[in-house]
Amino acid sequence: MLILGLDPGSVHTGFGLLERQGSTLKAVDAGRFSCPPGLALPGRLALLAAALSELLARRRPDLAVLESPFHGMNVHSLIVLAQARGALLAVVAGHGVEVKEYSPAEVKVAVTGSGRAGKDQVARMVRLLLALDGRGALASDATDALAVAICGAQRLRMDRIAALQSAAE
Amino acid sequence: MLILGLDPGSVHTGFGLLERQGSTLKAVDAGRFSCPPGLALPGRLALLAAALSELLARRRPDLAVLESPFHGMNVHSLIVLAQARGALLAVVAGHGVEVKEYSPAEVKVAVTGSGRAGKDQVARMVRLLLALDGRGALASDATDALAVAICGAQRLRMDRIAALQSAAE
Repeated sequence: MLILGLDPGSVHTGFGLLERQGSTLKAVDAGRFSCPPGLALPGRLALLAAALSELLARRRPDLAVLESPFHGMNVHSLIVLAQARGALLAVVAGHGVEVKEYSPAEVKVAVTGSGRAGKDQVARMVRLLLALDGRGALASDATDALAVAICGAQRLRMDRIAALQSAAE
Repeated sequence: MLILGLDPGSVHTGFGLLERQGSTLKAVDAGRFSCPPGLALPGRLALLAAALSELLARRRPDLAVLESPFHGMNVHSLIVLAQARGALLAVVAGHGVEVKEYSPAEVKVAVTGSGRAGKDQVARMVRLLLALDGRGALASDATDALAVAICGAQRLRMDRIAALQSAAE
């Protein structure tokens, strides 16, 4: 099962692709789509949508996971980010890929055990959980996208265990 | 010259296509893309993006015009609308169509002469300016999209006159 985490942004969008093999998770791919400086918003959205569409066609994930949006942002940032998110969601659903959303706190709990963990702690735990330390530096958007994908994978596993337990009762 | 006005919404998105022939405007097409009830947001965005993409491929407008977003909305509505808008903008720019944005007040002035005109007055003036009275009822999203397209057409004309004047000086 292949799970795609996305960390949307209107200039850089992080992505992280996890393969779940039994109870272990393996990072298959991670990075970010970046727009050239000076490009206006509609052009950036088109570029991010095209890059995501290419990734989806090539990797064919079973599930895409995003953080539920928009905590503690000013209205202008929120509008720009929501537009980027909408462009990406349309592409994901257009490829027939299921979408799940989790809050930032849910993602932090999944990766670090604490909903109040800092960004550095999340990044360290992502590298540890996915045994990435042999690899070079990842952009923070890519690490964040992998964190979201880890959360999605854990939730799927918990949902499956809950379904088995209720079937056994 | 073909001008597409869009009135984005996450359930219904209005569109209106104007042809400018010299100083007169003719409505070529208008209507709305609608999502079936119960469809979740990612699916709606994909559906609206696909419908717009089909319209752009068929009609090949020279310019797309939208209202600049988000006056007097609560944060939840604003996030949903911004996501719809982002999905549509990515499609427009992906087809290489230029995008212009005008504020609601600019659109009202262009159509009625007053920035404080009500929705009914805008709709009546759109029907009058485009001589639509022979036609059946249009959805309000479609009328709003035509109003935005009228504003875009007027602004283009004013920009051209200003350019001619400054060249003549």
